[in-house]
Amino acid sequence: MFKKIGKFALVGSVGVSCFIAGTYYDNFKPFETETIKKLPGLPFFGTVSAATSFPPPPIESKANRVSQIMKYGFPGYDNIRSFDDYVLSYDHRTKVAHWVFEHLTSESVKRNETVDRAKCEFKPDESIHTYFRSNNSDYKGSGYDRGHMAAAGNHKRDQKHVEQTFYLTNMAPQVGRGFNRDSWNRLEKYVRKLTKAYVNVYCCTGPLFLPRKESDGKKYITYEVIGANNVAVPTHFYKVVVGETQDGKLEMEAYVMPNQVIDDNVPLSSFQVPPESIEKAAGLLFFDVARNKISKINGKKN
Amino acid sequence: MFKKIGKFALVGSVGVSCFIAGTYYDNFKPFETETIKKLPGLPFFGTVSAATSFPPPPIESKANRVSQIMKYGFPGYDNIRSFDDYVLSYDHRTKVAHWVFEHLTSESVKRNETVDRAKCEFKPDESIHTYFRSNNSDYKGSGYDRGHMAAAGNHKRDQKHVEQTFYLTNMAPQVGRGFNRDSWNRLEKYVRKLTKAYVNVYCCTGPLFLPRKESDGKKYITYEVIGANNVAVPTHFYKVVVGETQDGKLEMEAYVMPNQVIDDNVPLSSFQVPPESIEKAAGLLFFDVARNKISKINGKKN
Repeated sequence: MFKKIGKFALVGSVGVSCFIAGTYYDNFKPFETETIKKLPGLPFFGTVSAATSFPPPPIESKANRVSQIMKYGFPGYDNIRSFDDYVLSYDHRTKVAHWVFEHLTSESVKRNETVDRAKCEFKPDESIHTYFRSNNSDYKGSGYDRGHMAAAGNHKRDQKHVEQTFYLTNMAPQVGRGFNRDSWNRLEKYVRKLTKAYVNVYCCTGPLFLPRKESDGKKYITYEVIGANNVAVPTHFYKVVVGETQDGKLEMEAYVMPNQVIDDNVPLSSFQVPPESIEKAAGLLFFDVARNKISKINGKKN
Repeated sequence: MFKKIGKFALVGSVGVSCFIAGTYYDNFKPFETETIKKLPGLPFFGTVSAATSFPPPPIESKANRVSQIMKYGFPGYDNIRSFDDYVLSYDHRTKVAHWVFEHLTSESVKRNETVDRAKCEFKPDESIHTYFRSNNSDYKGSGYDRGHMAAAGNHKRDQKHVEQTFYLTNMAPQVGRGFNRDSWNRLEKYVRKLTKAYVNVYCCTGPLFLPRKESDGKKYITYEVIGANNVAVPTHFYKVVVGETQDGKLEMEAYVMPNQVIDDNVPLSSFQVPPESIEKAAGLLFFDVARNKISKINGKKN
C-alpha cells in the first residue's frame, strides 16, 4: 500500500521534512529487536473471538459494535468510554484521550445523504467528572483547533455517529492551518482510503508528549496547556492502523506527526515509525494480541 | 494537629518560602466550591465496609491488608500493583507511579529489631512490561535520588515489607540534598508521627507535573526525563493524608512540595493546599467515598 505515496521518495528533500525528521529522530530510537518482548495474556478483556471476521459483519447493537471495534484488544484501560461507532480511553491528567479506536470498512465510511456535519456541535462530555472535563471555553482564544481523534469523516453513515465524534473527549488541541486542516487531514483521508484495499481497517489515534534534548544536554518534555482546565497541547499525534485482507492477513502502519505546520508536499510515508517507539512513549500496547500475526509493518515483512 | 508546627507562622517570611509559594500559587487556584461536585458511585471497587475499623484490626493476609490500606477507595485505576504493606497505581507513560497508598498505625510503624534497611536493594519491578519499566540505569548519573513514595521508614515491621518499598515502581526521581533527604523526609516523619494522634492514618503520595506561566503569557508544563526509559522527573510531589480518630472522625491534610532544594526552616504547613487542586492536576480523586464525612481539611472545619 505504500507504493501509492512514493515511500522514501522525498525524505529529507525539503527543509521542513528535514526539520520534522530531525525533531522526530532526536526522540525516537527504534528498539533493539531483542528487547521487544511481549507479556503473555495482555490485554485480557475486550478481545473477542470473531472467526467470521469477513465479509464484515453487519453493524448492529452497540455492544456488538464495541466488540468489532476492539477486536484486537485495548491499548490501555484508563477511563474507557464507548460511543456508537468508536471507543476511547481518557486521561484525567492531560484532559485529552490516551487513545481513540475505530473500525472502518468500505461500507461504514460511506456517507448517508441525510447526514449533515454542519449540524454538529462541539460539546463537553458529561460522563467525565467536572475536575477532568475539557470545555469549549478551554479552547477559546487558544489559537488551537479542536482536532478530532476519531475523524468525523469516518462516521457519516448516521447523524448520531458523526455527532458523537464532536464530544470534547474526542478532541485534542491541534495546530489548525498546516496541520489539522492539511497534513493531518491528508493522513485521515489516506486511512479512509485503506478501506478500498482491506476488508477491515482498525485505526488507533492519540496524542504524544515527546522529549527533546536541550542545550544543557538533558532531555525535557515541554507542552503548552490551555484554558482554565489546563488541557494539554500534545507535541505530536500518532495513528496506528491495521488492515485485514480478504484472506485474513494483517498489515500494520504506524505514523507520528508533529503538532505543527507541515509542508503539504512531505509524503505521509516519511512520518512512518516503528510502532514500538509509539508504544513506549505513549505507555500503550497496540494490537498486542495479534502482533505475532502481523505480516507487514510499514510495508516491510514482519 | 496543625498547632504543633506553627501553621502560617512563617509563610512568606523567608525568601525560599516566597519563591515556593509563588511557584505554587501561579499554578494552583482553589476551585470555586460550587464546582466541586462528586460523581455518584465512584470508586466502585476496592472499598470495603469496615464497621469495626478501630481498634485497628490485626494485619493478616495480603488480601485483608489491601482492603485495610484501600478502605477509603482508589484514587484511580491505572495499572494497580498490590504489595504486602502498600498499594500503587503505575503510569506507563511517565514510568513513575500515579499514586502510592499506605495505611499506618502506631503498631505498624514500629521497627522490628531484626529489620535492616541496609540489606535492601533498589530493584526493577518485573511485573511491569519492559517497555514501561524503569531501571536503576535510568537513574545512574542523572543527579537525582531514587526517592521513595511509600517511605521505607513506614514499613519496618517486617524485612519483606521494607524490601518491597525498594521496587522502582515505588520510586520517583527526587532532588537529593535539600529535598528527599531533608524537607520531604521531614514531611514523611510528620506523617509517621500522626499515628500518635490518630488510630488509623491513610497516606496517598505521588508526583505532579504542574504548569508555569512563561514570558509569552502562555502556560507550559516542562519536566526532565532521565535514562533510556525517559523516566519523568516530577516538578512537585503531593501527600494527601487522612487521620481517623478514636471516635471515628476523619481529618484530612494535603501537601504539595516542589521537587527542588527547600530551606529546612520553611514550616510544613506552608505547603498545605486545597486537596481539590491536587486532584485536578493529578487526574485523581482522593478518599472520594468518604469526603463528605471529613470533618477537618488542613486544620479547618470542612
